[in-house]
Amino acid sequence: MDENSKRVRFGILGCANIARKVARAIGLAPNATLCAIASRSKEKAEKFAAENGFPASVRVYGSYDQVLEDPGVDAVYIPLPTGLHVRWVVMAATKKKHVLVEKPVALDVAELDRILQACESNGVQFMDGSMWLHHPRTAHIQHLLSVSHSTTCIGPIHLIHSTSTMPATPEFLESDIRVKPDLDGLGALGDLGWYCIGASLWAKGYQLPSTVTALPDVTRNHAGVILSFTASLQWDQPNRTVATIHCSFLSHTSMDLVICGSNGSLHLKDFIIPYQETSGSFDFTFGAKFVDLHIGWNVRPEEVHVATKLPQEGLMVQEFARLVDSIRDCGSRPSSQWPEISRKTQLVIDAVNKSLDLGFKPVCL
Amino acid sequence: MDENSKRVRFGILGCANIARKVARAIGLAPNATLCAIASRSKEKAEKFAAENGFPASVRVYGSYDQVLEDPGVDAVYIPLPTGLHVRWVVMAATKKKHVLVEKPVALDVAELDRILQACESNGVQFMDGSMWLHHPRTAHIQHLLSVSHSTTCIGPIHLIHSTSTMPATPEFLESDIRVKPDLDGLGALGDLGWYCIGASLWAKGYQLPSTVTALPDVTRNHAGVILSFTASLQWDQPNRTVATIHCSFLSHTSMDLVICGSNGSLHLKDFIIPYQETSGSFDFTFGAKFVDLHIGWNVRPEEVHVATKLPQEGLMVQEFARLVDSIRDCGSRPSSQWPEISRKTQLVIDAVNKSLDLGFKPVCL
Repeated sequence: MDENSKRVRFGILGCANIARKVARAIGLAPNATLCAIASRSKEKAEKFAAENGFPASVRVYGSYDQVLEDPGVDAVYIPLPTGLHVRWVVMAATKKKHVLVEKPVALDVAELDRILQACESNGVQFMDGSMWLHHPRTAHIQHLLSVSHSTTCIGPIHLIHSTSTMPATPEFLESDIRVKPDLDGLGALGDLGWYCIGASLWAKGYQLPSTVTALPDVTRNHAGVILSFTASLQWDQPNRTVATIHCSFLSHTSMDLVICGSNGSLHLKDFIIPYQETSGSFDFTFGAKFVDLHIGWNVRPEEVHVATKLPQEGLMVQEFARLVDSIRDCGSRPSSQWPEISRKTQLVIDAVNKSLDLGFKPVCL
Repeated sequence: MDENSKRVRFGILGCANIARKVARAIGLAPNATLCAIASRSKEKAEKFAAENGFPASVRVYGSYDQVLEDPGVDAVYIPLPTGLHVRWVVMAATKKKHVLVEKPVALDVAELDRILQACESNGVQFMDGSMWLHHPRTAHIQHLLSVSHSTTCIGPIHLIHSTSTMPATPEFLESDIRVKPDLDGLGALGDLGWYCIGASLWAKGYQLPSTVTALPDVTRNHAGVILSFTASLQWDQPNRTVATIHCSFLSHTSMDLVICGSNGSLHLKDFIIPYQETSGSFDFTFGAKFVDLHIGWNVRPEEVHVATKLPQEGLMVQEFARLVDSIRDCGSRPSSQWPEISRKTQLVIDAVNKSLDLGFKPVCL
């Protein structure tokens, strides 16, 4: 068996802009290979394949069904608009294709459960496209959050603050799928909130918050789609933690993540997309106190750099392919870790939506 | 007239810890001089004077009244617990002493108005001890916030996020005046919130928010004093802006201030007390976009350093003394700028308290 035949074979449904990045990542991951691409028109798929320099071995289809019928495809990457996820993920699972799907996964948890149920009953792996979770920086920070080693850990977390903002162009605000109620009806709550809610849950070890509260500054477009919002999550056990989240299509680019515990704090300004692909950094402050007279601090933040050979999307594809390979070749069960993370993220998105509907009242989970 | 006789002559009411820093600042300011210190016991005041190396010319009193009766005192610095401010500021104003008072100024705006009314009717200058406003870094940033020069300004502000947190010791939580309902009944809302609310108002050019909302994660001690809280302020004109604020005595030290506009963002991690006394820095990000494929950013934050010869408390005293001097020697009216800033800060503190009382409902201002 040659090296290539061991690789997990990917098909891509749709030629969204983000598919360019993930197609490249499939090419970079050592255990994956791209073998099919489809658009609703074959011409569009051919143009996409040519523009992205896909090898001639990549089969180009004019319908998504053809990828799902292709016996040479093990797994599909689905960057379609959220409103189409249930249909195509369920279809892919039925055809025994493993599924890597772009976030937000679904419009609500009922939809998400249909998706996860289809994947589970067909024994296929599910993962959403939260690429930043796969960066080694994330694992490095997770170690600092762990309470098991008390010497340098930041201790029980009190505050998590995150943002995901970008300055949308007038064209985006007019016509991008992310502001269309029938395509990505969650708007900024789904597209950007997925990251911030996901980061807050991740920092808390995926414990669900007890309370979710949306704030009254929500901004919607004429069709009611959220363009900007602020929300807070609250945990009461084992200690009180609050997460504040701000996401917006109307602001300068920001991707802040701040985690403040009892003993230290972490600051990132690029937690979703690192400034550069080959490394990620963060500021770590530990044991900060004011010097005598309170005219300065005893420590400064330490800038910690974490290098990565593969870009985070490549690491995501590699991890997904590793799980697929394990199912395909070793008869393992699909990992429940990634579906559970997606489901918890979706539950909190739903709670933010409910709080918005209830006039910004706290919603208990 | 020698150089010293032109200086504004300060008395200090009380030997609080923070009085050490401000006494030093009075010594550093070129237009101020310390001439009297009082405690409720003369022994305590003498000890304080000796420990802080005050010159023999500084008169040491065993009661606050004696400072207010001293004709050689032009102005008083009042670091007493907030619950005592009305009594002593009103008394000082009646005795025609100009007043620099520690924050939080009052327990509510009704008290604050008694204070400001006394200062106004007696023609004395009022200023609160928000020292960070006097750092040249603050003025530098204010220039970047100004919309009048479009080339590098950050544009209309969308998000302001600030924190003021510190890990209080068990002794602090048990017995510090800042957690005693009869001394500093506002707890973290007054002591720490004054900075974050002040910074949010400052960033918005002291426009009052339309809405103030407290979040349900508030933590109080057994006496009901706030130890930790989160709140948001919202402005709707000329554009929607949200400020999130988190203050806590229960967390690692943090003093974050992030301002994100349409064109750029600013990040500070030490906005209240700079890491070192001789300069302050901040990160400035302008025109950030993702590079092709969204695998990095086109720019990195620029670290901007702003040096200062005098510490920010010295600059505060210098500005206060300049105004006093102008009243004393040139017959100017007291500046209304500083009383107005204090009053707006107090109004928002009151609104946070009201939102807490109303079960976290948005409060309109």
